[in-house]
Parts: sequence; structure tokens; C-alpha cells
Amino acid sequence: MDCIFCKIVEGTIPSKKVFENDHVVAFHDIQPAAPVHMLIIPKKHIAAMNDVAEEDLPLIGEIHQAALQIAREQGVAESGYRLINNCGKDSGQVVFHLHYHLLGGEKLGALNAK
Amino acid sequence: MDCIFCKIVEGTIPSKKVFENDHVVAFHDIQPAAPVHMLIIPKKHIAAMNDVAEEDLPLIGEIHQAALQIAREQGVAESGYRLINNCGKDSGQVVFHLHYHLLGGEKLGALNAK
Repeated sequence: MDCIFCKIVEGTIPSKKVFENDHVVAFHDIQPAAPVHMLIIPKKHIAAMNDVAEEDLPLIGEIHQAALQIAREQGVAESGYRLINNCGKDSGQVVFHLHYHLLGGEKLGALNAK
Repeated sequence: MDCIFCKIVEGTIPSKKVFENDHVVAFHDIQPAAPVHMLIIPKKHIAAMNDVAEEDLPLIGEIHQAALQIAREQGVAESGYRLINNCGKDSGQVVFHLHYHLLGGEKLGALNAK
């Protein structure tokens, strides 16, 4: 599988991990768009939101649970944070392995500023 | 309960609904930031992501399932879309009833442009 995030899950590509359990991994985005910018991904390879099957829905819940724990650990739970899932070309999705961006640590920009 | 989104759920405040099932409602954002801009909310009042309890995690899955259906119905599943959850002050969260923004219909801006 030639997927950069699968390789991060396996550990064959290095990352600065901040969270890991049986199903979910989170690590620092290498091009942070905010003081706190983590990527939260399922270990299972799912290309994008469009490919989330009914059986994967508990995984989405687990990703959110991880996000909440990470927000607390990174000290942004109270100041505020944004969780973003990009799906497909118009969204700017670059890596086709489902991932959620967790952004925080400053006043964030508008939802769709250009 | 003096919550504008609870009133939308009850129907005492009007909205342009695009989806409704037993647990989830979605409707047009009244100040759209993109050609497609829907808000997807649980019927249950949960103030924000920080308040999502373990028992609420299946609801997060249901919200995502609704998002995917709405993206398809609005014709943006293939062109691309972004799902955003804002939690707290730095994120710009204004209404304190958990909601996901679904944005699409054009090339979306950077994750944290200002």
C-alpha cells in the first residue's frame, strides 16, 4: 500500500505522534496552519469521507474521542479548537487516507476565507 | 431551553431543512460561506464538542452518515466538501449547540486563512 499515512501508522515514515490506541493515531502536521495543528487518522486505510461505510461509523466516534483528549492535552480545550475533515478536490484534500485536522492555539480564521 | 438550534429542532424557529431523522437535523446556514453551506446538528442538546460524552459517540457517527448523504444530495460528494466542527472561543463558535458545517460547491479556502 503506497499510502504515506499508512506508513506513518506502521512507523516506516517518522512522525511526531501525540496519541495512539488500537484504532487511531494522531501526530503533528508537518506544515502547521496554527500553533496547534494535529492530524488524527484511523489506522485502517479509508481513502476519504466518501468511503466511510456504516461499519466504520464507530471509528468516527473514536476519532472524535481522541480529538477531545488531544485538545485537552495540548491545552486548547478551553481556549477553543476546530476539527476539519476535507473530502475531495474542492476541499484541498491532498493525502487520500481519512484524516481530521485539529487546529487551535490562536483565534482561527473564517470558515472559508481566501 | 433558550437555544436557537433546539428551537429549530422543535420547529418553533423556521429553517430550510435538508435532512431529518430520529436523532439528526440539517438545514441551510443563514449566512452561507460557500455555495453549499449546511449545518448538521444532533436533536439532543449538547453545547459543544467538549461536552460530547462516551454515550454520544454513536451520534457523531450518525452526523457523519447524514453529512455524506447530504453531500451526495447537494451534488458535492464528487467535487469535494469540508466538514467543520468549531468548539469554543478561538474557533468562532457562536451557537452553543453542537453543529457541523458542511461546505462545498467551490474551491474552498485554506484551513486557517485570515
